[in-house]
Amino acid sequence: MTALPPAELDRTDPEGAIAAAAKRVSNWGRWGEADVKGTLNLITDDHRRRAATLVRRGRSYSLAQRFDMDGPQKGWRRRTNPVHTMLDTGTDAEAGIQGFPHGMGGADDVVAMPLQCSTQWDGLGHIFDHGRAWNGRRAGEVVTSLGDGVTGIETVAADLAGRGVLLDVGRALGEDVAGTGGELPDGFAITPEHLEATIAAQGASSEVGPGDILVVRTGQYGRALRDGWGEYAGGPAPGLSFTTADWLRERDVAAVATDTWGFEVRPNEFDVAFQPLHQVVIPNMGLFLGEMWALEDLAADCSGDGSYEFLLVAAPLPVTGAVGAPLNPIALK
Amino acid sequence: MTALPPAELDRTDPEGAIAAAAKRVSNWGRWGEADVKGTLNLITDDHRRRAATLVRRGRSYSLAQRFDMDGPQKGWRRRTNPVHTMLDTGTDAEAGIQGFPHGMGGADDVVAMPLQCSTQWDGLGHIFDHGRAWNGRRAGEVVTSLGDGVTGIETVAADLAGRGVLLDVGRALGEDVAGTGGELPDGFAITPEHLEATIAAQGASSEVGPGDILVVRTGQYGRALRDGWGEYAGGPAPGLSFTTADWLRERDVAAVATDTWGFEVRPNEFDVAFQPLHQVVIPNMGLFLGEMWALEDLAADCSGDGSYEFLLVAAPLPVTGAVGAPLNPIALK
Amino acid sequence: MTALPPAELDRTDPEGAIAAAAKRVSNWGRWGEADVKGTLNLITDDHRRRAATLVRRGRSYSLAQRFDMDGPQKGWRRRTNPVHTMLDTGTDAEAGIQGFPHGMGGADDVVAMPLQCSTQWDGLGHIFDHGRAWNGRRAGEVVTSLGDGVTGIETVAADLAGRGVLLDVGRALGEDVAGTGGELPDGFAITPEHLEATIAAQGASSEVGPGDILVVRTGQYGRALRDGWGEYAGGPAPGLSFTTADWLRERDVAAVATDTWGFEVRPNEFDVAFQPLHQVVIPNMGLFLGEMWALEDLAADCSGDGSYEFLLVAAPLPVTGAVGAPLNPIALK
Amino acid sequence: MTALPPAELDRTDPEGAIAAAAKRVSNWGRWGEADVKGTLNLITDDHRRRAATLVRRGRSYSLAQRFDMDGPQKGWRRRTNPVHTMLDTGTDAEAGIQGFPHGMGGADDVVAMPLQCSTQWDGLGHIFDHGRAWNGRRAGEVVTSLGDGVTGIETVAADLAGRGVLLDVGRALGEDVAGTGGELPDGFAITPEHLEATIAAQGASSEVGPGDILVVRTGQYGRALRDGWGEYAGGPAPGLSFTTADWLRERDVAAVATDTWGFEVRPNEFDVAFQPLHQVVIPNMGLFLGEMWALEDLAADCSGDGSYEFLLVAAPLPVTGAVGAPLNPIALK
Repeated sequence: MTALPPAELDRTDPEGAIAAAAKRVSNWGRWGEADVKGTLNLITDDHRRRAATLVRRGRSYSLAQRFDMDGPQKGWRRRTNPVHTMLDTGTDAEAGIQGFPHGMGGADDVVAMPLQCSTQWDGLGHIFDHGRAWNGRRAGEVVTSLGDGVTGIETVAADLAGRGVLLDVGRALGEDVAGTGGELPDGFAITPEHLEATIAAQGASSEVGPGDILVVRTGQYGRALRDGWGEYAGGPAPGLSFTTADWLRERDVAAVATDTWGFEVRPNEFDVAFQPLHQVVIPNMGLFLGEMWALEDLAADCSGDGSYEFLLVAAPLPVTGAVGAPLNPIALK
Repeated sequence: MTALPPAELDRTDPEGAIAAAAKRVSNWGRWGEADVKGTLNLITDDHRRRAATLVRRGRSYSLAQRFDMDGPQKGWRRRTNPVHTMLDTGTDAEAGIQGFPHGMGGADDVVAMPLQCSTQWDGLGHIFDHGRAWNGRRAGEVVTSLGDGVTGIETVAADLAGRGVLLDVGRALGEDVAGTGGELPDGFAITPEHLEATIAAQGASSEVGPGDILVVRTGQYGRALRDGWGEYAGGPAPGLSFTTADWLRERDVAAVATDTWGFEVRPNEFDVAFQPLHQVVIPNMGLFLGEMWALEDLAADCSGDGSYEFLLVAAPLPVTGAVGAPLNPIALK
Repeated sequence: MTALPPAELDRTDPEGAIAAAAKRVSNWGRWGEADVKGTLNLITDDHRRRAATLVRRGRSYSLAQRFDMDGPQKGWRRRTNPVHTMLDTGTDAEAGIQGFPHGMGGADDVVAMPLQCSTQWDGLGHIFDHGRAWNGRRAGEVVTSLGDGVTGIETVAADLAGRGVLLDVGRALGEDVAGTGGELPDGFAITPEHLEATIAAQGASSEVGPGDILVVRTGQYGRALRDGWGEYAGGPAPGLSFTTADWLRERDVAAVATDTWGFEVRPNEFDVAFQPLHQVVIPNMGLFLGEMWALEDLAADCSGDGSYEFLLVAAPLPVTGAVGAPLNPIALK
Repeated sequence: MTALPPAELDRTDPEGAIAAAAKRVSNWGRWGEADVKGTLNLITDDHRRRAATLVRRGRSYSLAQRFDMDGPQKGWRRRTNPVHTMLDTGTDAEAGIQGFPHGMGGADDVVAMPLQCSTQWDGLGHIFDHGRAWNGRRAGEVVTSLGDGVTGIETVAADLAGRGVLLDVGRALGEDVAGTGGELPDGFAITPEHLEATIAAQGASSEVGPGDILVVRTGQYGRALRDGWGEYAGGPAPGLSFTTADWLRERDVAAVATDTWGFEVRPNEFDVAFQPLHQVVIPNMGLFLGEMWALEDLAADCSGDGSYEFLLVAAPLPVTGAVGAPLNPIALK
């Protein structure tokens, strides 16, 4: 088993590799010209009905990281951590200055935050490939200063619920590939072979098929909880290899989420590149990507009972026209 | 049937009525001195397991209203509508000015918003009764300028999932009580009798018991969709009567949500008052209140198949220390 | 004297009128190809030196309106009023919860606001004419999602100080043209003739020449203070006529500010139009426009001593890349 | 000459030293019980009239640092750098999607920022001494979640203009005290003796008297421009010694500004302390403190012509109820 990208990946030609992969995995037109949901079309009512039967104990897990000033953001692309301030406080209520009748007191608050500052979905308007957005639309036709007028996250407000499958690659392979129990090292590229090996190690509950929401744990977030954020936001990280694009397309997953800032391995697998797998799968495949998810507790539970599937309700906050959205994903086992 | 508050409600003495009701419905100490979850303790794993069996067709409904500048807020208590702005756009990507390699382009965004500007949960730190917060704590000990350091919404990030029950009072009683099909008029106080009558009209799937998340539709939001917001944010509205406090306590519901700005009837049922039912149920009962939910589509479905129960996953965005939180509630039927 | 626009203004052809006026008043190239300061080039050190001699009594006036939630904004173009929240409060300090040593306590705050929500300068990147910005640059070359990379307001951080001249058209002509003492009615277009008549009425201190910062009082803000904001933000208002473009160019003023939301008369003087005078003077003339200034106190002083000139220091808050900027203009008499 | 604090400063007793200094320098009651302006009362019209005569060449300097994401803030007390986003862009205008008539295009923007993120004044409600604010008021009576209802920065909107005097301690003493030409080293405490020595070195134009706005240059900002921010926001820095409180009171300055984050020397001169000089001079003396000013260009000019006095117009952005305020200070020489 190896962490190296496959031999055929030419590190000097990202543009060629992206173009070839985009052609192979494209879903443009698959759900009609007017489609705005991409791979979420793969989550049918029947899929969701079956997913609900996976709730065996009724245990609920929040897969959200924290939303506060102690987050990992350092200002890249003007992304700050969330700034939460109070409009009214208990201290004020106690001081008797609020002016409400009959002993009433209240607190109220405000937040200012980048939509991708913490646990989030990338919407379909988040990434473009040579000026093209999902389904072949022109980027400038989709996302202007007014937001995403076509594939804004509110268009999928009800869709992101279905069968979730955890592939805990960190736990399955960490020891073997890196001598790090439960974690992958930064820079580790998860290939299709690693995904398959994890499925094999975890057993039948881990099979991944059409409409599933794939959740990949690298262990990096657990490391950040233990050792501090460091360069979590944009620095070196384990993540999916560029070479997984075809595997994701073949499995026809509806969405993929990870416990890292950027979903794909960093540094990226080309000499000069920026998130090339995003460029293939978001605009071309129409795939929803989840980033910065908190998977430690869920992973411990799955490891404990040997079952890696669950009902996952991962509804984005439907900010109109948003190209990404924060959320609190709930896994029910 | 009548919309009038019961005879025993003395309109001139809100403070007395609140004190008496608070005493009757108090849950202080029920789950220990250290408790921060209030009535959410009533949602057990087993409750959630059974709730999942209610998913019969796999149909998913988002119960979120919109999050944008076209919302109803007019500045009361500095509550604006959400301001969503772009950090990067498709227009810029298309213009080729973003500087990414290999034809990559991106869009990114930011939001600034009050946490209670649209679909939301009131957290336990939102309301105080004579300087006391949930479980008897001092308001100033709980919520300072730094936020709610005790019962911040993040403490219940995983809890708000369970059996949801829709009581569509607007549809069940609108015609009878007000001659308005499907809607209650502004100022209409929903009493325990109205809730019981709705349960009776809707049938067995509407029974409300311990741990359930009660969802009450008045029809006001549908009216706002049709006629414009008007005074939706804080003006006259149908809503729960002050007299429902005991009923909610007896049924031991885990949470209650409505399609109105303020949950309880407005104008309030005392001569000089501000949200007296909040003052009883949040700090004293430890009850979570949902406001500004979008119930029209779900209500139509329930009316269609005659089943008013569902799995409800209503996970708040876990902003650390928040006294309220926006969310995208998902009902699975 | 008349409030009607001149006969030659064809109400059906704004585009033709704009093109003709733009050609007549253009300053493109006047200060070189690389220029980013437009008419502010007209304020020389010597001009400023002489302006300082106008300070005769040392009286200081702030010409800023308020910056808070009680402002006139109603959400047009996502413009809210400023949202000011506290990070720390005196109530908290008094409650002894801040954790500072030796009896120290503190308060701190945050603001979120559109840069043009209250008293402001329009920067040169604020308005484009057929895709062209100041000095003939392409709009998309100047202002992207990253802000104004060429003429951002920080480039003129030190420039907006010089001789200010108040033309109190409201006081000089209000009674004559509209029977409204001290105020012009909404919809009143101030023509060059009105400006000249005001200068004549006010006397020699009101002469307007190269490099001067012209301040025009209509009286609408005083009316708003008295009667409430109403439609102040974007509704009908007195203001400069489209026909003043040539006069402003001939006088070679450095900047013009008014006490209204939009500087020019509203409704605009063409059948279908939006701020046509802006389109002429900002990108073509390179003129800085001030809006929403508070002129009542200064006007009373000028009326009192008969002197309408002063040292005006009107330095914009230099937010990097801003196309407009809030400020607190100071007039020293 | 020495950088050490005077012998009488007991490093183990900040509370005693603060109490003693507060008693010596207190201005409580000096301008009446109702006063909200503190030392700004010392700037009279006549003072301002004379200050205007200092404008000899008409040269204008902006003393503002930048307001953008490249600032020094790292999140301390939830202070971020300013987040500036666009509501409309030139790219969009050029793409023809804005919908304005007659070839009009526009750009508009928004900012979210702590009021003390960059060049700023500390208002009188910013710091408390044992629960007391300026003039002896209770902290909780002055600053609540609604802001500073008594001494909000808007109350001095017109006041901060007068004679400015630059004491360029970095240039005058840097070489002597630290072998660093033009700069003081981090941790260097500027004592009254250093201020006097600087006045002596600079000559008669540097005399400091009643109503003057004292501007002290340490050189640290120039170092940050050259070497990067490092720990500029809150880390070690040169600054005024605790022992200057009496000197400032004797000179009766109206305000003091520096080119550092925190005005006073850091680390502070007591073993366990946080900004003890603030605690003495803001609530007790009623003194306005300016921080994070950009003094490099002005200092070079003063050094060049040997004159260190000027007209300083330093008007805060008058956010209602603000305890601090950003500004663009203008020095006219």
